[in-house]
Parts: sequence; C-alpha cells; structure tokens
Amino acid sequence: MKQPFRQVMLGLFAGIASITLIACSAQQNEISNSRVDVPFSPALMSALKAKQASEQSDLAYDIVKSLTVEVGPRIPGSSGDKRAVAWAQAKFEELGFDKIYSQPVRVRNWERGFADAQVVAPFEQRLVITALGGSVATPEEGLEAKVLMFDSIDALAQANAADVTDNIVFLNTRMSRDRAGRFYGVVVSNRVNGAVEAAKLGAKAVIIRSVGTDNSRFAHTGIMRYDDDVEKIPAGAISTADADILEAMFTKESEVVLNINMQAKDAGWQTSYNVIGEFTGSDKPDEVVLISAHLDSWDEGTGALDDGAGVGIVMAAAKLIKETIGQPKRTIRVILYAAEEVGLVGAYQYVRANKDDLGNIIFAAESDFGAGQIYQMDTRFADAVRNDPSDLYAALLDMGIELGNNTTNGGPDVSMLPSHGVPVLALKQDGTYYFDYHHTANDTLDKIELDDIRQNQSVWALVTAYMAMSDFDPRPAPPAS
Amino acid sequence: MKQPFRQVMLGLFAGIASITLIACSAQQNEISNSRVDVPFSPALMSALKAKQASEQSDLAYDIVKSLTVEVGPRIPGSSGDKRAVAWAQAKFEELGFDKIYSQPVRVRNWERGFADAQVVAPFEQRLVITALGGSVATPEEGLEAKVLMFDSIDALAQANAADVTDNIVFLNTRMSRDRAGRFYGVVVSNRVNGAVEAAKLGAKAVIIRSVGTDNSRFAHTGIMRYDDDVEKIPAGAISTADADILEAMFTKESEVVLNINMQAKDAGWQTSYNVIGEFTGSDKPDEVVLISAHLDSWDEGTGALDDGAGVGIVMAAAKLIKETIGQPKRTIRVILYAAEEVGLVGAYQYVRANKDDLGNIIFAAESDFGAGQIYQMDTRFADAVRNDPSDLYAALLDMGIELGNNTTNGGPDVSMLPSHGVPVLALKQDGTYYFDYHHTANDTLDKIELDDIRQNQSVWALVTAYMAMSDFDPRPAPPAS
Repeated sequence: MKQPFRQVMLGLFAGIASITLIACSAQQNEISNSRVDVPFSPALMSALKAKQASEQSDLAYDIVKSLTVEVGPRIPGSSGDKRAVAWAQAKFEELGFDKIYSQPVRVRNWERGFADAQVVAPFEQRLVITALGGSVATPEEGLEAKVLMFDSIDALAQANAADVTDNIVFLNTRMSRDRAGRFYGVVVSNRVNGAVEAAKLGAKAVIIRSVGTDNSRFAHTGIMRYDDDVEKIPAGAISTADADILEAMFTKESEVVLNINMQAKDAGWQTSYNVIGEFTGSDKPDEVVLISAHLDSWDEGTGALDDGAGVGIVMAAAKLIKETIGQPKRTIRVILYAAEEVGLVGAYQYVRANKDDLGNIIFAAESDFGAGQIYQMDTRFADAVRNDPSDLYAALLDMGIELGNNTTNGGPDVSMLPSHGVPVLALKQDGTYYFDYHHTANDTLDKIELDDIRQNQSVWALVTAYMAMSDFDPRPAPPAS
Repeated sequence: MKQPFRQVMLGLFAGIASITLIACSAQQNEISNSRVDVPFSPALMSALKAKQASEQSDLAYDIVKSLTVEVGPRIPGSSGDKRAVAWAQAKFEELGFDKIYSQPVRVRNWERGFADAQVVAPFEQRLVITALGGSVATPEEGLEAKVLMFDSIDALAQANAADVTDNIVFLNTRMSRDRAGRFYGVVVSNRVNGAVEAAKLGAKAVIIRSVGTDNSRFAHTGIMRYDDDVEKIPAGAISTADADILEAMFTKESEVVLNINMQAKDAGWQTSYNVIGEFTGSDKPDEVVLISAHLDSWDEGTGALDDGAGVGIVMAAAKLIKETIGQPKRTIRVILYAAEEVGLVGAYQYVRANKDDLGNIIFAAESDFGAGQIYQMDTRFADAVRNDPSDLYAALLDMGIELGNNTTNGGPDVSMLPSHGVPVLALKQDGTYYFDYHHTANDTLDKIELDDIRQNQSVWALVTAYMAMSDFDPRPAPPAS
C-alpha cells in the first residue's frame, strides 16, 4: 500500500533549500514518513541541477534514434550485434566519457530463418509464426501433425503421453495487461519450458500463443530452453490473432492439422562485448555507481523499447550529470551488457570477470522495461541506512515517484549482484503497453514518447547524481528474505 | 452542420405509437426539423421489431467469424476467393434465403510473392515492404538505386527528370486520423498514381509510406494503376515505422541507397462471382431493396474489417428481418460483390448484366468501412420526397444517428448506380481506427467489437426493414450537383 504525496513543495527554484512533506503514515509499508522538513544535502542540490538540465534535453531519445536507425536489430553474435558494439564505443566517445572499454563475452549465435505455418484441416489458412529463440529447425520439408490445444503448460502436464505422442502441442494461454507487467512471469513458462514439457509427452513440436498483451498479427519471440535429457523439438509462437483463429477451429467435429516449417539454426560461437563507459570519480574513484542497460535485442524489431530505451536513458543520464555538475565524486560506470536476451550472458560474464571488485559498487541498477514513465523506486539497501537519503526520497516524491520495497533484484542484468552484497535499486516504469511490442518486429522507435523517455532520463539523472555526489553508502545489500 | 437530437423519446415499448422530436433548426442544412409528433407508420413498427431482435443477436459477428476462420484471405481470383464464393452460397442457404444465385465476373488475378527491401547505405537495415496490388516485379535479383524522398506526389511532380532518372522515388506523406476517414482520399493518390508519376520522370521504382493511420510495422497494400503510355515500374509500400527509419537516414551528408526485391506476378484471368441472396417480396416482388458488401479482400489479413464486417452486417440484417417479421413486402436483395479491391469489377459487371432492371431498385447501399458504430445516414433520394420517411429519421435519431446530406454515392460498389437513377443511402461508420488495419495482415477478427458490429446490424435491420415494408419510394436519385 503506497501513499501519494501530492503536497510536497520543492523549494529549489524558490530559493528554499528544504522540502516540506505532508506525509501519510504508511500502514502496510515499512517506510515511515511523517511531516518533516527535510534539509537538502549538497548531493541533492547537485542532483537537482542535473535533473533540471535533463528536463530540457532530448538526449536519451536521440541516442535511441541513433541506435535504431544506424544499427537496428542486434541479436547476440550477429553482424548487427557487432555493429552495435562499435556504435556503443563511438557513442561513449562522442559523449565524452573518460574511460571506455569492452569486455568479451562468448555467445552462441542463432539465426531465425524462414518460418511458416499452414493449417491443413479443417480449413486451409496460413498463420503468422515465428521461431522461439534457440529453437531447432523442423525437417526441411516441414512437419505435419494433428494439433492438441491446452489452456496452459500445467494443463499439458496433466495430459497422457498416449494422446500427445506424434502431435503438435498448442499452448494457448492469454496474458493480462497491467502496469507492472506481472502477468509476464505467469505466462512466460509456456515459452521457456513448453518444448521440454511437450517433448516429454512425445510431441513433435510446440507452438504457443504469443506472450503478449496486444491483439495483432505480430508473433512474439523470446528465449526458450531445452533439457539435455529430453528430445529437442521445434518451438514457435503464433500471433494472438492467429491463436484466436486456430482456437476457433477446434470444434467437436473437427480435427485440426497443422503444417509447420521453421528453418532456424544454431550459428556457432561468436564474441560479443559488454561495452562500458565511465566518468571517473574525482574524490573516490574506487567507489562505483553502476547504471546499465543491455545492448543486444531480438532480431525482428529494431529493439527500441527492449532495450534501446534503457541504453539511451543511462548513457544520457550520465552525460547530463557530467555536463551539468562536472566530474562526479564517485565513478559513474555505464554498462551496456551483451546478450541479455539469451540468458544474461554478458551480466554473468561481468560478475565472473570482476568478482574481486564487486565490493566497490555502491549500487547497481538497470533500465530494461521500455520507456514508460517511472512511478516507483524499489531498493535493496542495507536496512540500517535505508531511510537515510530522505531528501532524495522527498525529491522523488515531488516527481510523483514513491518509495517501494527494499527487496528488489534491480533488473535482469544486475539481479545476481545482491547475492554478492551489491546494493541495487529499481526505477519501476509503467509497462502497461510494453508487452504489446516486446520481442516483436513492432518494437520500433515510434513506440517511444519523447516526454516519457525524458522523464526516465531525469529520474535516472537525479538518482545517479545523488549517489555519485553523496557519502550515502547502502552496502551491503541485505540477503533475500 | 448537424444538430444532435437527444431528447427524442421512442414510444414503441411504452405503447405510444409516436415519436416526439425536440428539434433544432438546421441553419446550414436543407433538412428541416421542428417540434412535431411523428406518427409511426406500420413499416416503422415492423422495422423496430427487427431492430429489437437484432439487439439480442450475435449473427453478424458470427458470420464474420465464420468467413475469416473458414476462408480467410480472398484476393480476387485466388483459391481463397473461390472458397469464399462457395462459403457465401452455403451461408445464404443456411440462413434460409429463398433465392440464391451467382453472377460470373472475369477478373485478373495477381499474386504478391516475395518482397524484401534492404537499405544498403548509409546504414544497413531491412525494411518491411509489401507490393502494391497489381505491381510488376523487380528483376529477379532485385534492383538497387539511390532513393529520393518527396513529401507528396505533388512535390514529385515538381521534380526534374534529370534528378529522378534511374533512382527510386520514396513518397513519404503522413495520413491524419479522423472519424470519417477523410484523409484517405488525400493520401491514396500516392499509392494509386505514384508509379506512373515516378516513371514519367524516369524512376526505376516507387515506394510509399503506407496509407494508414497506425504507427506499426505493418505495410498497407492496395490497388495501384499503370498507364499504357508510361513504363511500368515496381511499386511497394513500407510500414509507417519503416518510413520513419528511412526518413531519418536522409541527412545532408548521406546518400540513401536501397535494394528492393519484389516478385509479384500477374496470374492470369480467373472467374469470380457476385453472390446474391434474396428474400422475395410478398406484395411487390419486383421492387428491390438492395443491400451489399464485398466478398473479396486483400491477401495478407483475413479481411475481417474489409469487408467481412459488411458481409456479416448485411447478411445478418436481412436474415433477422425475415426471422422477425416474415416475408418482406418488397424483395430484399443482398449482394456480395466480387473483386471490389481491384476496381469495383463485380459492381460494374452487375450494372452491365442488369442494366434493364436497375429501375426496379428502390434504393441501394453498401457496408464497407469496418465495424465502427454508425453515427449518420446520408441519402441520395428524390428531393421532393426526401423528408417523407420522418418516422424512420426520428427512430434513427433515437439511436444517436443523424440525418446527413442528400448527395452521397452510397459506398464504392453502389457508387455508379445514382447516375442510372437508383437512389442510394450511406450509413456512415466511425472509422477512427479503420485505417490502422486497412489492407494489412492485421485486418483480423479481433479488431471487431461485438457491441459495435451489433449496432451496425441493428441499424441496417431497421433501415432495410423499413424500406422493404413501406411504400416510400425515393426514385429517381437526383443527379450529381
């Protein structure tokens, strides 16, 4: 239960260096706020300058535009990915980062290839299908079989192998829409585990209703997994509109027969790179404020929302801080991770390569949920000091951003850090429409509103600047509860 | 200038057989309404029964579902089109029409084939492209050329042949959104005439920003034309998102080079059919009330909005009238025209084949603008009697539907009838989102709201029943003013 604080008055531009909170008691929330005058720390004063500059800047948007127009799709290990790495290095240079380096990441490249699905009976109809990331191919001539439809992967698990054997399994679970994207976690198991569960029962292939909240003809791809002990069968996603069509063909009288042809292939080992840019700290260069996004994307869209937006937001926030307030006291490290989409490969490599230095990280965070406006900050800070940066929290409230829980994992690519004691925070974005476009060809720049990405940029500038300019130290992250 | 009439009270179910109008004077409208008691005609009493039945019926929706699931895409002359003809005949039978017949229509079939577009410079990027209907193919290996961008076809007309020769012309006109779809007429010339205008200046090919109001990766196809005196060059549409990407590549420094490969082909003459179902009039079988839609669709979507919705609406309206009030006094003729998309071919064939009987048609109308709610009725009725069916107009006002102008052409497939003296009317639908989906793969059943198509069905049932049960005779249509 969060309480809105609408009456906060931010005094910076009125010359009053304090924030007055008219607060509500947070009955179901460990955060305790009360009516207080919160004095501005010097760190907040600096941070508010960076935020103010950000509010006039299109930089994050321009960076996403540059990435999506000049590079476009960049599936890990592909030529697009290699161009993205070069683009990122050049962009860090152009933005004046004083330390720029790359960290090799070995990644298995995969190529989508041709994909087609045709209903043979009861009614001839072509369906829009896309291979799931990592899927094996069908035989060259395709495969044709009867289709069995299940409402969920759990329903599939109840089926008899005798019924499923030699058929195509169709997992037809609808995904609900909400701001936090909570239903993704519920439905994504169809995509990730569907092939293994279907193969265990002898299925020839699995197709899923796209994991998405749109109603459209775009199929949503995304990573899937095999189990070494279970036969590898082809796995694809059909668009939600096509899932409706297929579903409508299941009647008491009719048998549904589908022909699927997908020529995806493993394209071998490639080297990709985590690309890192820093503004070195003036006072405490060894204390690192780590903000991040991932550079790779799926291959059908231009990866504007996933995760071009994050790339733009964190690069721009760091640059605007440097531009506005000069060299930060602590080092600001911007990491553009490689190969997030295929299993956080770059992030795990970063942890392996830097395992002795993780203790230097004051906090880490990732922007990887599109460009919807930020409405909440969750943290994973040492409990004893969690309430210390009250002026930062007040400034966020003034922007309409509430303080949430202290149990976040900070985002995909930093999610393994808290177990190493690294504090994280999550700036939670409005994801109401994120899963309309996620992992589709339709993830393009036009889905980003300039005002929205600018709000993100400003919040990231504020929080990052504050942490880079203050002595506040939330280490170590509390363990998972 | 239309005036809303919100205070109309419809007395049918309260047992009061009259309508009280609180009317406004229509300053800029020839329709004159004043505060009157409009007595119900017996025709209106019957029509309101049909409307009431319709309000509980899913029939129009179910018909569209049947067509889109069981047949799907049905470009004129294709195997899908042939299946659609068989479907329509069977559906008329299932619905109990007492006269069902087909009228052959010779049509040139065209196959879309493979289409691909790759930006070669300044940045490698693949664009979503689709061939325009009727386009010739590129050479088998594709064609590569510098791209010249124009804001409009008018701007192209100002260009020098020396600049355009051997290049690819890109017509990049944005389309605005409105309820009546007025901007389609403004922009569609790019699609229809772009190839001829570009070829006149020596261009190798033309691509257009899709004629659509969406921002997405769906390219909008649609018919284009050649001129026998001008070289035929390939013509394609790129999605609006891809048009943005391409546009962003045009800078002072860079030359934009594109490789296009489209393997569309003419597939020869085929026979399609206008499929016609009738409920024969009991009193005046030779007086015909003609309601229509078109059976064909483009080939990438399932033609749910264009024009499955119209097919469902007019078939259902006729069936519900028969079911509710029995055999109509006049004949209700439902025509599902062939080959509208490629130039109203079925409609012209109908006029040719029935030129001696057109005088029997009391009025004609077509539903061909999706399934958005109806908000206005325009007519083309003999001026002297236009205001006679005041009870019908009052009943429509009670549904929120205003009476518009008396100069409509009634819809594409009946637009040639007024010149033969045949009255027409147009039930104008809310097309705010129609051009998001029009002529794309995304024109599927999920875009139709059940409540919306049911409102259409009810209005068509009301108007059609009224005209089939009354003696009102709007013949002949006034000539174009």
